[in-house]
Amino acid sequence: MPVPPRLSVGEILNPRSIAVIGASEDLRKFGSRVLNNTIRGGFDGEIIPVNPKRSQIFGRPTVASIRHIDNPPDVAVIAVPRDYVPTIVEECAGHGVGCCVVITAGFGEIDAPGARIEQAMVDCAKSAGMRLIGPNCLGLLNTHAKLLLNSSPAMAVTPFRAGGIAHITQSGALLATVYNRGVDDHAYFSTSVSVGNQADLELADFIDYLADDPNTRVITLYVEGFRNPQRFIDAIRRCREAGKPVLMAKSGTTEQGARVTRSHTASLATPHRVLEAVCREEGILLVDDIRGLIQTAEFFSRYGQPTGDGICVVSGSGGAAALTADRMAERGLRLAGFSEPIRRRLEVIYEPTQLGNPMDSGALKEKSFTKIDDGGLSIAVEEPDVHALLIPITTGPSVGNTARCMADSVIAGAKPAVFVIMQGNADDGARDILNEKDLLCFETLEEGLRVLERWLSALRLPTAGKRPERPDGLPAPANSALLPTHPTEHEVKVLVDSYGLTSVKEFVVTDIDAAYGAADALGYPVVLKAVSRHLVHKSEAGAVKLGLNNREELHTAWQSIHQSVPELEGCIVAAMEDGEAELIFGILNDKEFGPMVLFGFGGLMAELIDDVKLIPAPASERRVRALLGELSLFPILSGVRGRPALDIDLVAAMISRLSWLAVDAKDWLLELDLNPVLIKQSGAIVVDARARTSTC
Amino acid sequence: MPVPPRLSVGEILNPRSIAVIGASEDLRKFGSRVLNNTIRGGFDGEIIPVNPKRSQIFGRPTVASIRHIDNPPDVAVIAVPRDYVPTIVEECAGHGVGCCVVITAGFGEIDAPGARIEQAMVDCAKSAGMRLIGPNCLGLLNTHAKLLLNSSPAMAVTPFRAGGIAHITQSGALLATVYNRGVDDHAYFSTSVSVGNQADLELADFIDYLADDPNTRVITLYVEGFRNPQRFIDAIRRCREAGKPVLMAKSGTTEQGARVTRSHTASLATPHRVLEAVCREEGILLVDDIRGLIQTAEFFSRYGQPTGDGICVVSGSGGAAALTADRMAERGLRLAGFSEPIRRRLEVIYEPTQLGNPMDSGALKEKSFTKIDDGGLSIAVEEPDVHALLIPITTGPSVGNTARCMADSVIAGAKPAVFVIMQGNADDGARDILNEKDLLCFETLEEGLRVLERWLSALRLPTAGKRPERPDGLPAPANSALLPTHPTEHEVKVLVDSYGLTSVKEFVVTDIDAAYGAADALGYPVVLKAVSRHLVHKSEAGAVKLGLNNREELHTAWQSIHQSVPELEGCIVAAMEDGEAELIFGILNDKEFGPMVLFGFGGLMAELIDDVKLIPAPASERRVRALLGELSLFPILSGVRGRPALDIDLVAAMISRLSWLAVDAKDWLLELDLNPVLIKQSGAIVVDARARTSTC
Repeated sequence: MPVPPRLSVGEILNPRSIAVIGASEDLRKFGSRVLNNTIRGGFDGEIIPVNPKRSQIFGRPTVASIRHIDNPPDVAVIAVPRDYVPTIVEECAGHGVGCCVVITAGFGEIDAPGARIEQAMVDCAKSAGMRLIGPNCLGLLNTHAKLLLNSSPAMAVTPFRAGGIAHITQSGALLATVYNRGVDDHAYFSTSVSVGNQADLELADFIDYLADDPNTRVITLYVEGFRNPQRFIDAIRRCREAGKPVLMAKSGTTEQGARVTRSHTASLATPHRVLEAVCREEGILLVDDIRGLIQTAEFFSRYGQPTGDGICVVSGSGGAAALTADRMAERGLRLAGFSEPIRRRLEVIYEPTQLGNPMDSGALKEKSFTKIDDGGLSIAVEEPDVHALLIPITTGPSVGNTARCMADSVIAGAKPAVFVIMQGNADDGARDILNEKDLLCFETLEEGLRVLERWLSALRLPTAGKRPERPDGLPAPANSALLPTHPTEHEVKVLVDSYGLTSVKEFVVTDIDAAYGAADALGYPVVLKAVSRHLVHKSEAGAVKLGLNNREELHTAWQSIHQSVPELEGCIVAAMEDGEAELIFGILNDKEFGPMVLFGFGGLMAELIDDVKLIPAPASERRVRALLGELSLFPILSGVRGRPALDIDLVAAMISRLSWLAVDAKDWLLELDLNPVLIKQSGAIVVDARARTSTC
Repeated sequence: MPVPPRLSVGEILNPRSIAVIGASEDLRKFGSRVLNNTIRGGFDGEIIPVNPKRSQIFGRPTVASIRHIDNPPDVAVIAVPRDYVPTIVEECAGHGVGCCVVITAGFGEIDAPGARIEQAMVDCAKSAGMRLIGPNCLGLLNTHAKLLLNSSPAMAVTPFRAGGIAHITQSGALLATVYNRGVDDHAYFSTSVSVGNQADLELADFIDYLADDPNTRVITLYVEGFRNPQRFIDAIRRCREAGKPVLMAKSGTTEQGARVTRSHTASLATPHRVLEAVCREEGILLVDDIRGLIQTAEFFSRYGQPTGDGICVVSGSGGAAALTADRMAERGLRLAGFSEPIRRRLEVIYEPTQLGNPMDSGALKEKSFTKIDDGGLSIAVEEPDVHALLIPITTGPSVGNTARCMADSVIAGAKPAVFVIMQGNADDGARDILNEKDLLCFETLEEGLRVLERWLSALRLPTAGKRPERPDGLPAPANSALLPTHPTEHEVKVLVDSYGLTSVKEFVVTDIDAAYGAADALGYPVVLKAVSRHLVHKSEAGAVKLGLNNREELHTAWQSIHQSVPELEGCIVAAMEDGEAELIFGILNDKEFGPMVLFGFGGLMAELIDDVKLIPAPASERRVRALLGELSLFPILSGVRGRPALDIDLVAAMISRLSWLAVDAKDWLLELDLNPVLIKQSGAIVVDARARTSTC
């Protein structure tokens, strides 16, 4: 029977007292290292080593067991052999401990019996209002509480400084690696937690806490899989609404799960694409390298969100400036322009022909050279279009002095800046100078460019907290009894029609006379299609006959379909339609992230280049319109080479309304394809449809 | 009147004696730094400071001028103010100096008068058989001669070690930066030259020398522009035939020159694409970051060319292993498989379920953990499919010992290896250990992956020295009188027909009765097209009327064209053709690299996604066939979703033959478009054609 937790996540990360169960002085052992790190970190609450065989450890008196502590500690670290863990968890729960951090591994990550033991520990903890972190974790750190409660040998050698980056990770080894490398890169942390198997407290619990943590300015995550995707998203939204950027590295992004799908949509909507779509819409910056994740986070932590994208580049080497400009252009990074007043001031030190951005400080007017050691940076930082500075430093005489002058100008101008030192040790002290002045300095141009690119990508994120509104005129959510597991094409069309997606005019017929009648009513030419719930690829099975011009051709087609298609339930006679563009719309109900809508260009060529977008449902017309504009073939919709502009507003409205169907039907609709949807100058029409539901 | 040079490039880079003109003891000055570096580098030839005002410098006796040296030195460095340079060059030439290295700037790179003075110096030098390096250069280095003949302060602090990488650069500042950073990254150089303005000796001269230099195993270039592209290519071919990889960083790759073009081909064949095509076919690895250039070069220098692409990853962190596998998959890098005998040996230390590649050494069987500190590497290196190792190291206990054991296994297995240390200073001595064992160790996974990716890309380069053979049945090269500046469509078709590219059946007519006659001869439906040399975009100008079914429709089309097209010279009546695929073929005569052939998919959709390839002419059918396979839409040619395979062999043959036309006509043909070329199951036909020549 669960009882309310004794401590909140915030109280656990800011404990008053800590017991380390399994403490020793043998630094080859986890418990010893946790204790050692905690003591050396300077934590000023109570630290109690628990060990029945020793009277003191590292000069601190021990207790024989948790039961011997009068005031139960807020946090108990458990670092004992696996077989003893459940009993100790039980003792802690019984004795009123707030949270156990279980370092020991060998539970749910190993096998099913391990998972059962893990679950029993969680049940025991919950029944006592105790929380668990881990098992199979490295521990945690909270620099603002001087708390280095983890087993990594890296803690002892990492210089200590509190900062604004929170890092929640599913990899213990990476926690320490990321922390140590980060500090080396002058990126400073507030909190870090190794969540281990997430038996109780999980990713989302910590993210939710960080939204309110005043010491945390930016949140970084290393994720292997989601325990509860919806809680994760809710927590992310709280962080974003608190103005805190969220950056995530995810592994397993290139694995293709073996999924059985019957729709084109489902085969296109790979797990990685779903994740990308979710991250894009939730404003999570997906970062593919763990070092760059922290470097970018530090840039956010120091400089906040970007307000514009103009970058000023200054270098003493023409070669470095040229390479930088090339790499920026490739990444779509924009060189800032200089307004007239700034330009006039720069022309005092540069010849007009030598002045530009990148600024090549090697091309300064000779007489001013020795006086303007910052290459004119003090002037350029005043340019309103300059939102960040990129300063690649190469070898040369007086590089240290140049770096110092540039650093001072950057600090005076209060603009975000990335220094890159391109040489090795021949820096004439520049690294030390920049470090002393607390400026960010990278070792490669690539790293500097990546940080700027990722920082600036925040300009394109959707605004936090804005959720789509349900459009007028949608039907009330239908119930699951509406459609069978494999609805027919016509049944699917009726469903989407109720959401305002018009289909081609058609009749379902079961005899040739009815077919003739339908064709007469529609007018020739017509299309004849097989109705069969079990046919996935109709065209390839010869189950679609296009452009039938008269009764004779219709009859021939009828016979052909009846001969070749098994389990035929009838035929559709439909009007021939054409359009200026052929799109595909689809719904996928993702196991982790729920209903998603897919849209893009259809037809063979478009499929070969895979020109589609995915967005979580519901999706606003505005967001759909923006994503349509990112399709490679978008000019076919907007008009190109004398072709007319098509009805893009209608397309966006249709996709948005389809996304509401995805939401309304999420309990029973698994997949849906509308393919093709033909788009005209005015109007758009669904020509073919298919769906799969969970009702059976 | 030029006379033969006194010294070869090899003799200049291995001089017996050096004079430094403008030497002093003031290290703020170029001449002083060159002299200081040369002395400190340990060069064991003669070093003569030249300075009329001092009797000795850095303890070496000076001479007042070059004329006071009895045996003229092989190399004279000139580092005096600009206005004195021409006179000193003249003195050197007259006194029998072998080569002047002109450090001083302010000549051709500044303005036209500067360029004239520069040329006069070259003329003077050539008339005396003297060579020039520079002006506006940093100097050179030849580690195998202990020669650090350059002005960079970086020389004094860079640890000295001779190696196999040659680096020729157009950026002086980058020479020293690259050298210093390289040595920091454990990449070691044979030779480096800053070519400056390349007034006399240029890029190609040094590359040509390096082909034969026994100390150089790999050639790296930083290039801003080519002085003589054909000499450059000839020199590259010599290097490649000598088995030496060539890696190049090029700046200015994203600049779009303002080129007036009349053909679709020319607008698609941007300078960067031309360069990419040339590099691909000549086997030059184009690298976009200068640090990665040298890191990759060192990998080639140590390990030679790859013989297979299987990579084995070993890490003590499951998180690092997972991220590595993701990044590898994204880059198309392949994880090696383990053969049965190797797998059986690995299963002694791993549970079968925990064994795989990446090898997670954290998942070793518990009892073997302490004994197998290399994670099983000593076994994995014996796997024949393992061609390289990638070893990401994270924090943890005994990381130093693990690194040592892994290093020993790698060395014993003699396989190429990339270590990556992901943490900062918490490496437990691993960096020092790897360094001591002379293994390559990178600071980020990205850098390690990039090196492997670039190294392995050499597997896909065309074989050196294999030039295409002229196919049988081509006509003798036509002369420039054949076609006017803007030939008509029909004239172009006749030209390409002579190279075996069949065009649609058509007649050129100037009156309606002839048009009727032509249509009767071809059979309806027909196409009517305007003949006008000045019309570039025929379809958009209403100058093409398709699908005319009878005389009446032909007449209407005729009238419409006569009303709307100015400067009409007649009309073409052509058969209606269709094909399964629509391609574009083209020729571009590039100003730098000569005739190129372009080919790819045509039509609106294909143009929007820009699905074309470029290759220097002549091009073999084999190479064209390989590039066709890289087109996004290639499945349309090879057959997909029940579509037939088309005549790919014929397509490749047509493009190869067109490339011979490009070669034969290179003196007068500027651009040519065949667009569309319709491809069928059997056969292919040119439907429209356009060209521009230089004759006028």
